[in-house]
Amino acid sequence: MTYCIGLCLDEGLVMLADTRTNAGVDNISTFRKMTVWEKPGERVIALMSAGNLAVSQGVVNLLNEGIEMAEAEGDGGHGRPLTLMTVPSMFQATRLVGQAVRQMWEADGAALEARDESFNVSLILAGQIGNRRMRMFQIYAAGNFIEATTDTPYFQIGEHKYGKPILDRAVSHDIDLTGAVKLSLVSMDSTTRSNLSVGMPLDLMVYRKDTLRVAARRRIGADDLYYIDLAQRWSVALKKAFVALPDPPWLHEL
Amino acid sequence: MTYCIGLCLDEGLVMLADTRTNAGVDNISTFRKMTVWEKPGERVIALMSAGNLAVSQGVVNLLNEGIEMAEAEGDGGHGRPLTLMTVPSMFQATRLVGQAVRQMWEADGAALEARDESFNVSLILAGQIGNRRMRMFQIYAAGNFIEATTDTPYFQIGEHKYGKPILDRAVSHDIDLTGAVKLSLVSMDSTTRSNLSVGMPLDLMVYRKDTLRVAARRRIGADDLYYIDLAQRWSVALKKAFVALPDPPWLHEL
Repeated sequence: MTYCIGLCLDEGLVMLADTRTNAGVDNISTFRKMTVWEKPGERVIALMSAGNLAVSQGVVNLLNEGIEMAEAEGDGGHGRPLTLMTVPSMFQATRLVGQAVRQMWEADGAALEARDESFNVSLILAGQIGNRRMRMFQIYAAGNFIEATTDTPYFQIGEHKYGKPILDRAVSHDIDLTGAVKLSLVSMDSTTRSNLSVGMPLDLMVYRKDTLRVAARRRIGADDLYYIDLAQRWSVALKKAFVALPDPPWLHEL
Repeated sequence: MTYCIGLCLDEGLVMLADTRTNAGVDNISTFRKMTVWEKPGERVIALMSAGNLAVSQGVVNLLNEGIEMAEAEGDGGHGRPLTLMTVPSMFQATRLVGQAVRQMWEADGAALEARDESFNVSLILAGQIGNRRMRMFQIYAAGNFIEATTDTPYFQIGEHKYGKPILDRAVSHDIDLTGAVKLSLVSMDSTTRSNLSVGMPLDLMVYRKDTLRVAARRRIGADDLYYIDLAQRWSVALKKAFVALPDPPWLHEL
């Protein structure tokens, strides 16, 4: 399994991914699920993936080698393969990722189906190119996609349920980046506690809008003192908040 | 879907169930998923069910009509059908429920499979009979079961993920019954917010150990002022707890 969160906020982007992959509980490994493409002053694009690791690694390889996009060329239509370093907009970047997913389906889909394995992959792509809008998209296994909005400024892929209640209560598009980092870490902590197939270390990327350079990138290990402290404080705070709740008036007879 | 929580604590039992059933989002209904059998001074037994409603209603009907249990008779072996009002122990009660599940499988399993519908049901049974121990069990679709212990004093059935983080952090076998009621309501609120197929009203049952009578039973509607207030306070408390968390020291550059 996997858990990745992307927040697309007024101030910028926060992307957080775990690194655990597993083929059964007796076969777990660590793989980076976040890839960042950056050309300072021109573009920052980050991609996170969940699902079949062979598919998502294939997608990243195709994106790096370049994909021919008949309709999507923004470089004058010379037919050169596009990469995330050359696409002219985030919309075209997302179509490129969708195209990479479809190429992986063409390559591996039938063989996976023949073995009753599912072609499952989902991705979050976010970034900004030049003077265009910063945007975030979620891309499905069919290569189609949706965009985050101010109503729902976050996407989750993988094991999303444990970490969702806190996001639903505390995320809005106008929270600051530092708060968003804390929120994503708390959401991740709730998930790693409950699902063994989501695990440390974590990969974090923070981007401040219109800067066109990564603001912070960090691998957070199981020994990260801040993260350990955060998780403990959150547990204590939850218990305190819980104790402070009033008793049900109809339970006085207990 | 469904969400039911059972807590088996030093002080007693707390059982909470939602009432929503759905066959698609365009076909939702309200059905009681909790059944209580009580003979004050002798026994209190509560059953909650998730899964196929036809199966779980069938199980309750079989339990009320009585089931012949060759090996499990505790009434002298006269071959009379046993019900939850006549079984001599919670262990036998749980075997009886398992037997009812297996009879439903014999009756409907093949027809369900033929239509590619799954025979899915899971149940939480808890209670106390006479001077025996108060106990709580989770029963699977195969009719087999496990018992809650002081290490893990709660069971969840149905949509368990959204409401699990708060339980994992705040439940222990020695919390008091009033706290346990609040905790189960908070866990339910997290679930109903995130999964439309879990919904109000709720059915609550509280039992204090060794009293052999139900301490409280209540249907909590969407208009229950305490529940509304609790949910709001919890949201506010979570946000406050979140704001009070320290900032990551490695993010000072933001």
